[in-house]
Amino acid sequence: MRITSGRLADGREIIFYDRADTARRIVDRRELAPVTASAEIRRDVLADEWVAVTAHRQTRTHLPPPRQCPLCPTVDGRASEIPEPDYDVVVFENRFPSFAASAADGWEPPAAADPLSDRRPAVGRCEVVCFTSSHDGSFATLPSEQARLVVDAWADRTTVLSSLPDVAQVFVFENRGAEIGVTLHHPHGQIYAYPFVTPTTATMFASARAHRDRTGRNLFADVVAAELRAEVRVVLQSEHWVAFVPVAARWPVEVHLYPRRQVPDLPALGEQERADLAESSLVLLRALDGLFGTPLPYVAAWHQAPVRSDRDLAWLHLRVSSIRRAPDKLKYLAGSESAMGVFINDIPPEDMAARVRAAIGNDPLASVG
Amino acid sequence: MRITSGRLADGREIIFYDRADTARRIVDRRELAPVTASAEIRRDVLADEWVAVTAHRQTRTHLPPPRQCPLCPTVDGRASEIPEPDYDVVVFENRFPSFAASAADGWEPPAAADPLSDRRPAVGRCEVVCFTSSHDGSFATLPSEQARLVVDAWADRTTVLSSLPDVAQVFVFENRGAEIGVTLHHPHGQIYAYPFVTPTTATMFASARAHRDRTGRNLFADVVAAELRAEVRVVLQSEHWVAFVPVAARWPVEVHLYPRRQVPDLPALGEQERADLAESSLVLLRALDGLFGTPLPYVAAWHQAPVRSDRDLAWLHLRVSSIRRAPDKLKYLAGSESAMGVFINDIPPEDMAARVRAAIGNDPLASVG
Repeated sequence: MRITSGRLADGREIIFYDRADTARRIVDRRELAPVTASAEIRRDVLADEWVAVTAHRQTRTHLPPPRQCPLCPTVDGRASEIPEPDYDVVVFENRFPSFAASAADGWEPPAAADPLSDRRPAVGRCEVVCFTSSHDGSFATLPSEQARLVVDAWADRTTVLSSLPDVAQVFVFENRGAEIGVTLHHPHGQIYAYPFVTPTTATMFASARAHRDRTGRNLFADVVAAELRAEVRVVLQSEHWVAFVPVAARWPVEVHLYPRRQVPDLPALGEQERADLAESSLVLLRALDGLFGTPLPYVAAWHQAPVRSDRDLAWLHLRVSSIRRAPDKLKYLAGSESAMGVFINDIPPEDMAARVRAAIGNDPLASVG
Repeated sequence: MRITSGRLADGREIIFYDRADTARRIVDRRELAPVTASAEIRRDVLADEWVAVTAHRQTRTHLPPPRQCPLCPTVDGRASEIPEPDYDVVVFENRFPSFAASAADGWEPPAAADPLSDRRPAVGRCEVVCFTSSHDGSFATLPSEQARLVVDAWADRTTVLSSLPDVAQVFVFENRGAEIGVTLHHPHGQIYAYPFVTPTTATMFASARAHRDRTGRNLFADVVAAELRAEVRVVLQSEHWVAFVPVAARWPVEVHLYPRRQVPDLPALGEQERADLAESSLVLLRALDGLFGTPLPYVAAWHQAPVRSDRDLAWLHLRVSSIRRAPDKLKYLAGSESAMGVFINDIPPEDMAARVRAAIGNDPLASVG
């Protein structure tokens, strides 16, 4: 893999991950005004959480027609975000970031400081990861060597972003499908480098610490062992990975994929684990697309260790979840979920696990297990 | 107000709240099989939360045509859920409940008990509150005396449900709009009586306790005082109520409505506070419908004190929030929100407050303030 970094016309960084020893010139001929992110984090004292308030994202690109796709290579003089005629995997800073180093430029604290409303610039970084130069398809339709290159790019970005002084947590994820608001169809994911440990992660590690204090054991290890023992919700086992529908799944479709070995984050995965991950995640995502006879809208979220805390407790894993509950029905977050945090799941996890296993069994490419 | 309780054909309770001294016969002539809720709560040990898993709700009624509306009165021999030819406000047990006393009937713990996967029957109660017998319109279009009757019904249900032995928290709410998955258009709300204190509420009171320990003061009082002092996010002030967009709003549209006096829940509101609430909430909801030139999809959520804890700290309030961020755009909960709990709000709360104030100013019926 050759890694080449350059700059876009407005100063944003772009990084090419090439399988071959490809030379990149990276000359962005567009005229782009520099981006200054007008982004702030504000403390919600009742929920004890940070909320990001961004004033510059309302105008972001919304479902452009294919020939204006900003994630395709630059060809026939039509300039995209990628100023090269082709690429394998490419990563660049989001033009409409929720978190960015530039958020600190010119930021001033509110005139009347109030201890109840702590406000800070939303420093950090948001990146876009293009999985392939082909506009059509999805992660699930990538050849396995391409999926492997994406894994290597994710791992490299995690290493680089973890080294930034303001970054507390690196979140690698993919939003897929217009049903969950995806505004660009080209196969891509995102990376958020947050300046704080997120609420979900903070709660998870509070649970893990309490479990260690009480039992001396690792909570994630015990969760995976309990699922393997119960069997009924396990959907996939490969040499290095295990996937299951969790016993308390929140979403109609929800699958967690854990490496068998405890590792804190993607960079810590070995060669064999990465190759197996590429294969296993393709099998899993193809099966999920087969569940309802229609491409599944999903969020695929990598849970990595925070950069500076709880790394001894952490156990890297991927969570894929979907709001689809039937071919023509979606699960909405209404009062109970959005206002009280109580999820109602209409599909028993054991039933969904059986359906995912059946879908994997129908996949002629699935040799895992 | 006259309150009359009866039973539907399948044993569910129905309660009429009538302004006049109306006699009710309540004879449901339908043939309905008894409902047994197949509902369970399961502990998510990583998130330290209960999730409800329900197997019987997938077939629930989905956007029926108006003449099959189950919330209209029973007229012309067409039987609805309300076996009377008219009503003022009526409440009945949900036929597709997420929580119900019947969830305990026949429930058995999993064969292989696992300390990591605590599972229990989802006891509790789910009710539907019909705001008016008129099929069209919404809460915002109710006459104020009708809104007042709804407030009295909410308060009475809170008192009754709080007295049930399994109930830990009573959640009164309205989901409005197909955009958030509402399956019946007839103006109505819901009540969930949970067998546990919800995650949002538990966190809120942990914050309030920590604040009291640190400062000796009530956190909610300090939040309201800070918003009144800052002024810029306040949208409405009446004799007994104050409404503002919170400094760390999560949603493009989000307004919190607090009584000026500390009360734990709806039953604790006095006569004048209830009358003022009816007027003020109508002004507020009409203004929200005016924001984008289209009826606003929203969740209106009453945050009440838990039944048996933190009642001295609690401060009743209503939170109205919407996923609409533009006339033709919705806010989706994608990776950052749904997987990490980090909300990104593209509309600064100060901007939204100015827009809500302008919408209230344009309402010829708005005499509050």
